[in-house]
Amino acid sequence: MVKRNAFYAQSGGVTSVINASACGVIETAQTHKDKIGKVFAGKNGIIGALREELIDISKESAKTIATLRHTPSGAFGSCRHKLKTFAEDPAEYERLIEVFKAHDIGYFFYNGGGDSADTCHKVSQISEQLGYPIQAIHIPKTVDNDLPFTDNCPGFGSVAKYVAVSTKEASLDVASMCDTSTKVFILEVMGRHAGWIAAAGGLAADEAGDPPHIILFPEIAFNREKFLKKVERTVKKNGYCVIVASEGAQYKDGTFIADSGSTDAFGHKQLGGVAPTLATMVKSELGYKYHWALADYLQRSARHIASKTDVEQAYAVGKAAVEFALAGKSAVMVSIERKKTKRYGWKIGETPLADVANVEKMMPRNFITRDGFGITDLAREYLAPLIQGEDYPPYKNGIPQYAKLKNILVARKLKTRFKI
Amino acid sequence: MVKRNAFYAQSGGVTSVINASACGVIETAQTHKDKIGKVFAGKNGIIGALREELIDISKESAKTIATLRHTPSGAFGSCRHKLKTFAEDPAEYERLIEVFKAHDIGYFFYNGGGDSADTCHKVSQISEQLGYPIQAIHIPKTVDNDLPFTDNCPGFGSVAKYVAVSTKEASLDVASMCDTSTKVFILEVMGRHAGWIAAAGGLAADEAGDPPHIILFPEIAFNREKFLKKVERTVKKNGYCVIVASEGAQYKDGTFIADSGSTDAFGHKQLGGVAPTLATMVKSELGYKYHWALADYLQRSARHIASKTDVEQAYAVGKAAVEFALAGKSAVMVSIERKKTKRYGWKIGETPLADVANVEKMMPRNFITRDGFGITDLAREYLAPLIQGEDYPPYKNGIPQYAKLKNILVARKLKTRFKI
Repeated sequence: MVKRNAFYAQSGGVTSVINASACGVIETAQTHKDKIGKVFAGKNGIIGALREELIDISKESAKTIATLRHTPSGAFGSCRHKLKTFAEDPAEYERLIEVFKAHDIGYFFYNGGGDSADTCHKVSQISEQLGYPIQAIHIPKTVDNDLPFTDNCPGFGSVAKYVAVSTKEASLDVASMCDTSTKVFILEVMGRHAGWIAAAGGLAADEAGDPPHIILFPEIAFNREKFLKKVERTVKKNGYCVIVASEGAQYKDGTFIADSGSTDAFGHKQLGGVAPTLATMVKSELGYKYHWALADYLQRSARHIASKTDVEQAYAVGKAAVEFALAGKSAVMVSIERKKTKRYGWKIGETPLADVANVEKMMPRNFITRDGFGITDLAREYLAPLIQGEDYPPYKNGIPQYAKLKNILVARKLKTRFKI
Repeated sequence: MVKRNAFYAQSGGVTSVINASACGVIETAQTHKDKIGKVFAGKNGIIGALREELIDISKESAKTIATLRHTPSGAFGSCRHKLKTFAEDPAEYERLIEVFKAHDIGYFFYNGGGDSADTCHKVSQISEQLGYPIQAIHIPKTVDNDLPFTDNCPGFGSVAKYVAVSTKEASLDVASMCDTSTKVFILEVMGRHAGWIAAAGGLAADEAGDPPHIILFPEIAFNREKFLKKVERTVKKNGYCVIVASEGAQYKDGTFIADSGSTDAFGHKQLGGVAPTLATMVKSELGYKYHWALADYLQRSARHIASKTDVEQAYAVGKAAVEFALAGKSAVMVSIERKKTKRYGWKIGETPLADVANVEKMMPRNFITRDGFGITDLAREYLAPLIQGEDYPPYKNGIPQYAKLKNILVARKLKTRFKI
């Protein structure tokens, strides 16, 4: 086997465990120095390859690389850049192959969601067409948990744990004050198309009737009257109502609640955000005092409350990607397979990228209660193992100690610059 | 010494460690059974006393009481109810004393902020006037850290830690994506009058130049032009800009930014929330892509990331309150005194309630950098010890296990009902 270099890039929205996958790739590659030469990381993802901005991982100590396992977000930078088809824009693919060739890169590890699975697949195909075959392996990552053919996506378990824990804690807050203060609390969470993250809020409940009382999924058409009735009934019964709302929650006609432009008591259009829109609706129709929170980036960067299971899986998919490459595989996604045992177990699997690209996995209807406002036991069985275990980062002076990389670029070998 | 019962109540906005103070009160009282009979807790705070809804703590096991130490929010319920002066409304005071007398209550432990310090003081005075002297001890609690005569308030250290950790994590997220995505991130935090919580965001920075790049305090008049210039300069230099904004940030004329009603690109009035208002301002004036988060109740209930120092102090002030009462004291607040040693140390102190009531402690000007957008080394020296140490709750199935109390009420002894 000829020794060749490897290229690793992070793609799309970052997660609190994507660096654990990077750690898995790098540490595993470094134990195969006979087959894998240097590992380069794309500065800001695939853009780094196009611009020939390759970070030289060998400039980092083994100790620093190890700290990636507990460092959130993208340590090498990520980007939102989707390559067009080869027919539409061959220049980008040609440039990629040119850069890979110049730096003797034979392995391409792409760590991202659906779009990057697609890119990874194309790179594998086109590199062959262009006479410089690259082994391209996709490493799954997405907080949205919307990739098919993998039981779950690394990144999701930790955001799920964050949302479940935050929902539980905020619910205790509301419950303790509801007699004279806030009656309705709304937590807005990520998930533009799929309701997995919102569903995780349901794990805050120990028993039926516990908060959250209402979960809004993108998969279930929002019915204003039904929603308001449920809020009112819940407040009358429990004294308060806790709602977890997916940012992608929408009306039957596809209008996002966030864009529905409801009008507040002053006649002003209320824009942006599911939570404030719902809050205004509740206030104007039912008169209840409300509070709302928008977790935004806090949820997907919250490494301090990461799921141990998620961290382990994130590392494992990175490790497996290298092992797959060394076994001669290409155009595959590393996947996580749930064992059919009673007690939760998982193992590494693989899926051809041809199958994965651009398919989104939504919440199955039987994961959502009949009234559309909660999760079923089936959903709980699926979700609960993914948030198991804590994996605390080390702290110094009360603050988590996260990796600080040097991110030193290797010298350019190409004379041409590529503008994107 | 005659054996008498004790009454404990939680007041105002809850915190992630107020139950640790409750735990300190109850466990300490129970070691003095020769002097303190039963401990009652007010259901929903002082309202519980007025309504004669007294929770019988003796119905809870010692094990359950111990779990209060790691349980956020108000386990007995809290309320926002400020007693008027005796001259304005003698009925409430008379009722309180009537209830205390009926249940042989000689000790009143009131766990809250400035308003409850005032109430506690009045109860002590008026109970003497009415011929049924109560020993009233105030136990400080407030996330806002705005009580005078105590180095800091239990509750603050944990919200400070949450804000510092969240700022650090979200900053890593923004930094990793800024090349092609979000350039400006705004985290809105609590603090209507004092900027202590926003200041804590500054602890996310390890060295000068680290995020957060801008902190907005209520104490510093907001200057739109200066702010926008600083945002632009920061993005140009670092590629991104992280802002921690206090909900109480305001213009020179006292108009809250949140209420300033800026207009978005569509000509719609933008209402509510400092973060969305600033985001709209940044977008329309500088054109940067933004994201923002509003932590709301998540920050003050985040027991999962509580400061160990804060938990210890919260327990200690509860314990000290009972010891003060047993030593015959009344009308005092338990305070925390910082030792004048180089290494951080603290001890319990006391302050007459006559001095405490209705005084707010703002950030001193020398805690804020000259440009008004950051914290000084002096502020860091003050703040850093308060977030020291982690004090994780126990987990089961990936979720923190928080106390579930029975909250059984004692039988009423009074025939009259009190309407509030």
